[in-house]
Amino acid sequence: MLTREQNELLVRTDPGTPMGRLFRRYWIPALLAEEIPSPDCPPVRVKLLGENLIAFRDTQNRIGLLDEFCAHRTASLFFGRNEECGLRCAYHGWKYDVEGNLVDMPSEPEGSKFKERVKHTAYPCVERGGVIWTYMGPPDLQPPVPELEWMLLDDDQRFISKRLQESNYLQAMEGGIDSSHVSFAHRFNLDDDPMHSGTEGNKYLKADTRPKFEVAESDGGLLIGARRTADEENYYWRITQWIMPWYTIIPPFGTHNPLGGHAWVPIDDENCWAWSWNYHPARPLSEAELDAMRAGDGIHVKYIPGTFRPLANRSNDYLIDRQAQAENKSFSGVEGISAQDFSLQESMGAICDRTKERLGTSDAAIILARRRLLAAVEQLDELDVLPGSAPEHQRVRSTSLLLPRSVPFEEGAQEALIATPGQTFVSV
Amino acid sequence: MLTREQNELLVRTDPGTPMGRLFRRYWIPALLAEEIPSPDCPPVRVKLLGENLIAFRDTQNRIGLLDEFCAHRTASLFFGRNEECGLRCAYHGWKYDVEGNLVDMPSEPEGSKFKERVKHTAYPCVERGGVIWTYMGPPDLQPPVPELEWMLLDDDQRFISKRLQESNYLQAMEGGIDSSHVSFAHRFNLDDDPMHSGTEGNKYLKADTRPKFEVAESDGGLLIGARRTADEENYYWRITQWIMPWYTIIPPFGTHNPLGGHAWVPIDDENCWAWSWNYHPARPLSEAELDAMRAGDGIHVKYIPGTFRPLANRSNDYLIDRQAQAENKSFSGVEGISAQDFSLQESMGAICDRTKERLGTSDAAIILARRRLLAAVEQLDELDVLPGSAPEHQRVRSTSLLLPRSVPFEEGAQEALIATPGQTFVSV
Amino acid sequence: MLTREQNELLVRTDPGTPMGRLFRRYWIPALLAEEIPSPDCPPVRVKLLGENLIAFRDTQNRIGLLDEFCAHRTASLFFGRNEECGLRCAYHGWKYDVEGNLVDMPSEPEGSKFKERVKHTAYPCVERGGVIWTYMGPPDLQPPVPELEWMLLDDDQRFISKRLQESNYLQAMEGGIDSSHVSFAHRFNLDDDPMHSGTEGNKYLKADTRPKFEVAESDGGLLIGARRTADEENYYWRITQWIMPWYTIIPPFGTHNPLGGHAWVPIDDENCWAWSWNYHPARPLSEAELDAMRAGDGIHVKYIPGTFRPLANRSNDYLIDRQAQAENKSFSGVEGISAQDFSLQESMGAICDRTKERLGTSDAAIILARRRLLAAVEQLDELDVLPGSAPEHQRVRSTSLLLPRSVPFEEGAQEALIATPGQTFVSV
Repeated sequence: MLTREQNELLVRTDPGTPMGRLFRRYWIPALLAEEIPSPDCPPVRVKLLGENLIAFRDTQNRIGLLDEFCAHRTASLFFGRNEECGLRCAYHGWKYDVEGNLVDMPSEPEGSKFKERVKHTAYPCVERGGVIWTYMGPPDLQPPVPELEWMLLDDDQRFISKRLQESNYLQAMEGGIDSSHVSFAHRFNLDDDPMHSGTEGNKYLKADTRPKFEVAESDGGLLIGARRTADEENYYWRITQWIMPWYTIIPPFGTHNPLGGHAWVPIDDENCWAWSWNYHPARPLSEAELDAMRAGDGIHVKYIPGTFRPLANRSNDYLIDRQAQAENKSFSGVEGISAQDFSLQESMGAICDRTKERLGTSDAAIILARRRLLAAVEQLDELDVLPGSAPEHQRVRSTSLLLPRSVPFEEGAQEALIATPGQTFVSV
Repeated sequence: MLTREQNELLVRTDPGTPMGRLFRRYWIPALLAEEIPSPDCPPVRVKLLGENLIAFRDTQNRIGLLDEFCAHRTASLFFGRNEECGLRCAYHGWKYDVEGNLVDMPSEPEGSKFKERVKHTAYPCVERGGVIWTYMGPPDLQPPVPELEWMLLDDDQRFISKRLQESNYLQAMEGGIDSSHVSFAHRFNLDDDPMHSGTEGNKYLKADTRPKFEVAESDGGLLIGARRTADEENYYWRITQWIMPWYTIIPPFGTHNPLGGHAWVPIDDENCWAWSWNYHPARPLSEAELDAMRAGDGIHVKYIPGTFRPLANRSNDYLIDRQAQAENKSFSGVEGISAQDFSLQESMGAICDRTKERLGTSDAAIILARRRLLAAVEQLDELDVLPGSAPEHQRVRSTSLLLPRSVPFEEGAQEALIATPGQTFVSV
Repeated sequence: MLTREQNELLVRTDPGTPMGRLFRRYWIPALLAEEIPSPDCPPVRVKLLGENLIAFRDTQNRIGLLDEFCAHRTASLFFGRNEECGLRCAYHGWKYDVEGNLVDMPSEPEGSKFKERVKHTAYPCVERGGVIWTYMGPPDLQPPVPELEWMLLDDDQRFISKRLQESNYLQAMEGGIDSSHVSFAHRFNLDDDPMHSGTEGNKYLKADTRPKFEVAESDGGLLIGARRTADEENYYWRITQWIMPWYTIIPPFGTHNPLGGHAWVPIDDENCWAWSWNYHPARPLSEAELDAMRAGDGIHVKYIPGTFRPLANRSNDYLIDRQAQAENKSFSGVEGISAQDFSLQESMGAICDRTKERLGTSDAAIILARRRLLAAVEQLDELDVLPGSAPEHQRVRSTSLLLPRSVPFEEGAQEALIATPGQTFVSV
């Protein structure tokens, strides 16, 4: 349970909020590279941390991410013309380069110096791993570009999607941290999931629904160990990495299946982007795997065409099928691992009221993640390197493995938790 | 006219409001029994007095009405599994019985005492007359189960429906109290209505549009006498019963037609349930009558399929037909007794601003009903039995009859106002 | 750039606001005469300056514009019966004449004096030029009926339309004042427009995108001169009239094409009516011209059938066509002069935040128009005749003409700026 003040502090990320200030110190996955596929393509709207922005790719393939509203008379640059190395407002022709400089002001007299006095908000962008990343914080405090494992692989080794989640980012991210719900919400679908199929892990998950949780701080966030009984000598451990401020990595099911992970990025206080990726560090994804992911299986979704909103959404009760629920084809009646999660998370309301929750021992990781976020807000001006912001904090893996009962999980899994692109990973 | 403060006091019914405290001292019609038709059927959402609840019927046919949001992490129990005498949250498997006890907490360690410390909000329910009733007030102050006449009859003697009204309950209920509008809003449709057809009453209603109103307090609410001239010696009286806090009984038209009545129950401050029932105390309803009611005639409505929202609603101007209005087929152009009422009531805005109204002599009953509600709020802690809460307050009838001009209506109608299930009623 | 206080002062027009007080001192175009086409036709809803009203035409062709909500119990008079010289509420039959008098109160006893004590809000109306005008201010301060040139012509010399604009009136009106955007937003469509075709003006507009602005106060508002280079000896002047409080007249393109103008009238703070008219002072409009206007060309629009909402609107991104934008068929990708304007204006948000704008020399007219509005608010109680409220302020024309470089535009255009119905106008 949180106080109202703690909850407000955690969920609000608009400009000027404490958590918004923290999040602006990290690189942010802003949009899929394919949303602006080529030089001079149409600009697209992007909303992040409560800020309305416009993204475009200029003639020289540079990426711009500007305040959506023209500095002149606040018309939207969505209607802008992307041409000759800049985005030109459709109202009076003011033209911006990717750095927010006014490079043309054709409505003003020749020789006017006005344009030199205007600077438009522009955030630096990089393209990495099929995603365009931006940094919205103070320029002198910009950290290195992220190096999550999947970003370092060849294009054919990964698949990335994003979807709109109609809730605050925190309740979404808590779902990614929370390993306990897998035994319930996904109980009847573990074998369907392309990432889960044909593994020993499912067997342990279903047999022991009461994992013991051990949580340890990592440099970048948390190591969340969920311990289940495997046999008389061994525990089955599933170890989730939480990397600050919003990444979760799913413990794997066998080494033949791809790995998976998420980022939970605030759009505004009542919506977030749920980013989802699958990758295999040692091989290309197969066509069958890619087809399933494109079709919305596993952690991905089917969309309303032309949008990033899931077909199964709040407005249609997530297409709940009570018959499927009664017949144990789906625990909640909702189809798909992903929709099973976000239907429950969105059902808490746009912003979960954490003054009403009753947390148990299975929520230890959630409690600690909130504490780390609140601590980072408090220490923001003292810390040289924010947890999760350094590449070495990001080059990590989750794992699932059997360990003798006497071996502490951080010790037994130490090697398995380091990402080595090109080499396969540890999983049972 | 009310002051702003009086109006606020009357219309607000959320937890913690004075009127909400009063209403929580009465049994409330919560949902149709057929909405949860059988043991272990899917749970359904119910919102009452601003509280989000979830209703279910357990394996042993007991009815549960719980706070919608799981005590653990506030996910909606709408996605819950109704199985083996309890409703299990789809997120982490917490399971509740109909009394709100945590009967299983599979995410916590075996032997954990945590579940004994958690008690979920649960309201007692009874099923009576095809309706599930709940009591949301202090347990020690729970009144007897209601005994409105139709609740005491055989199933084949009544028909019950509910519909969503997109306005505060009070302006809806005032329509039920207000006998005067019948001569106008329903003027051209009195003969169409299955409850009105072929009676003398219609003749008097149309001939005298200026009834005199005499209102008397009853034990349970008000007796509202509308007096119209019948002939030189007699008055035609239509006597409406208002039973606190929200029941209105329609004066009958002939003894061959069924009786009718309503309950006006707040969903939240801007929406209410309009419950409508027809019944005949002395005979089963005929197939023809039932067919008409199912088709939405009279006080019932046609729905948007799969919902309780009327097909004719605010978003489509209630399918107003100006041609029908011009040709005197409908006074307002809206079709159907029920839609004629709620179209006008909703047109006042979600919450009627009573600081702007100008009440006349025809509004005497409305004025007195408001006063009784406000008085009951004031006396809430002093009264042993709240008006309208005792079965003897509820076993009453409305009536329509001719009385010699010299006879006071309470006296002349005394017998006719008592409900005796099995015996027919008095009406001209 | 404005302060937040200045912006609030300018954009808010509900009852009781300073700008609302100013606007209520002018005649207001309220609805198209054809919306209430004949005596006793159905009443229609009209919202102006934040007030909900109902318009009707009585049996004797008098026009009524009443507070929408019945004085009795606040039901909407939209459902009213328009019959025998009055509008009768469908709830209890109260009947109003066009002056807001209660002429029948059939729910009250015969002989009741109650109806003489009730007076309903009613605004005087006149029908002129195919439009119904109303005056919502203090009766003793009512100015003469407007005499804009098109109002004084024969019916076949003009075409009038209105459309819903989903923004505050001010950012809409600023578009009408702002001559500079024509070279950009409409750049590729100047030749398509029925008002622009086949003229020299287009040539100058495209050649010189950096007009110099000279603005002069007129009796009724502003004269806005946009000066472009024509040749070595002459300037090409486009002179726009702004007539207070909300009229703009478009400078013509040739004398063979019709003239055009607009009124920008607040519905509420987040919506306005954009009135558009074309007219030729010296000849009837041709069938071809009328067909184009009815089809939504030029300053008119295509509608969602049965509404005044444009087919291309905020909810569908104005049907933007990125291909047409890339191929220079439309500067912004939006089709149609009118939609090109309002798409950009609405994109500023429902109420433009003028604390963020950066105005240049091309915005001189906008700056001065705001100043005149603010000054008029300040002097409201001192002025005998408000600027723009007298017929002589309204009988003016915009013009486009070549003038020798040495001639000041007010002097050179003096004659051309006076409206003489029946005589043609000056334009190159």
